[in-house]
Amino acid sequence: MNVELLFTGRSATPRMVRGKNALVVDVLRATSVIVTAIENGASAVVPFGTVGEARRYAADAERRPLLGGERGAVRIDGFDCGNSPLEYTRERVAGREVVLTTTNGTRALENARGADRLLVLCMRNAGAAAGAIAAAGRDAVIVCAGTDGKFSADDALCAGIFLDRLCARTDARLDDAGRFVRDFCRMGLAGRAGPRDLLRESLHVNRLRARGFEADLDYCLTVDATDVVPACREGRITA
Amino acid sequence: MNVELLFTGRSATPRMVRGKNALVVDVLRATSVIVTAIENGASAVVPFGTVGEARRYAADAERRPLLGGERGAVRIDGFDCGNSPLEYTRERVAGREVVLTTTNGTRALENARGADRLLVLCMRNAGAAAGAIAAAGRDAVIVCAGTDGKFSADDALCAGIFLDRLCARTDARLDDAGRFVRDFCRMGLAGRAGPRDLLRESLHVNRLRARGFEADLDYCLTVDATDVVPACREGRITA
Repeated sequence: MNVELLFTGRSATPRMVRGKNALVVDVLRATSVIVTAIENGASAVVPFGTVGEARRYAADAERRPLLGGERGAVRIDGFDCGNSPLEYTRERVAGREVVLTTTNGTRALENARGADRLLVLCMRNAGAAAGAIAAAGRDAVIVCAGTDGKFSADDALCAGIFLDRLCARTDARLDDAGRFVRDFCRMGLAGRAGPRDLLRESLHVNRLRARGFEADLDYCLTVDATDVVPACREGRITA
Repeated sequence: MNVELLFTGRSATPRMVRGKNALVVDVLRATSVIVTAIENGASAVVPFGTVGEARRYAADAERRPLLGGERGAVRIDGFDCGNSPLEYTRERVAGREVVLTTTNGTRALENARGADRLLVLCMRNAGAAAGAIAAAGRDAVIVCAGTDGKFSADDALCAGIFLDRLCARTDARLDDAGRFVRDFCRMGLAGRAGPRDLLRESLHVNRLRARGFEADLDYCLTVDATDVVPACREGRITA
């Protein structure tokens, strides 16, 4: 099994994902939100690239979905929830459809949707996602959302943790980017350091800290906390 | 001083380098060749993106330059030298102009040429290049050539070594990519491991090993072996 790693959602093209399994990762915070909403019983998460599309879909729906998402890390005007996974409680989402639009994550999902199978990866389900990809046994591509079109250390570290778990189960052949982040994760997490220590200087972590999202950071940077690996089919993400 | 890191030459654009110092790095092997040729007394290295351009420039020159370069890691038909730095001896290059065309490195040089000042970086001059950028005190961009448009671990590790040296001299503000490779380098080289150990699985290292370029690997993966930091001005690289 060959596994490729792309550092930004913008660099993913239909040709790169066709016939493969793809994993989209946006640790802070879109894919952490999606995994949490599905874990808490949402019937589906429907991602959109723009606020307008999200609003139109919600207006046309038979039963009004929960509207979630952010621009500039802040909840969108008139939306029910922002982009904090802690808002997507069982009380709020169980049995409901969630419409989601975020700056980087939903774009990466769109660019990867030509994949045979599209899974949602975050730190919380890294080991479970590795199990799913190992069981499938087919070539895979990891698409990091990145931040504003650039490399983001949180997504890269998550990819490294996933690849560490995957290489423990299979003899996957990684590319240079994959080996680099896997080895970074192995060296960095070998001692007493955790993801928060390794990411303490990173742009996105500091941006969220400055806005008071400390609890989100603790939650999103927790590894292997759930077995839920949502999959995206025809624009709908389900369990 | 802000320092940005780009993992592929293709991702560099004029807007990204304008008004800044840029460093181009293609450890295996274009920038190692350039540093060696200048160190050994070449009057200039003139890089070209295509074989045709290189030949035309050589044909029009008053005094025939040394023709060097590769396609698929192999010397180009009719050229004097390939892309092994060990070919660019003092006997061969002193006082001569060298025309160079390679698969990844010369493209990265072209994409970065809108920079205010364009320096040539490899492992052998990493510390000296850090000194030059620290002394200049202006924003900088590191452009890794990459391999075939993708992330290449040898270039990333070299950028990490450079940034480790730079951060020891200045309080440069790095982006996520820069911190990631600097921390990789610090963790990886903290023990007894050297660049060759850290890169033993990388694609480009194995490609060169398979073709018998062991001596090139030893040479190109040696750190801080020279103080020569060539600069590119109007298409010509000089001391």
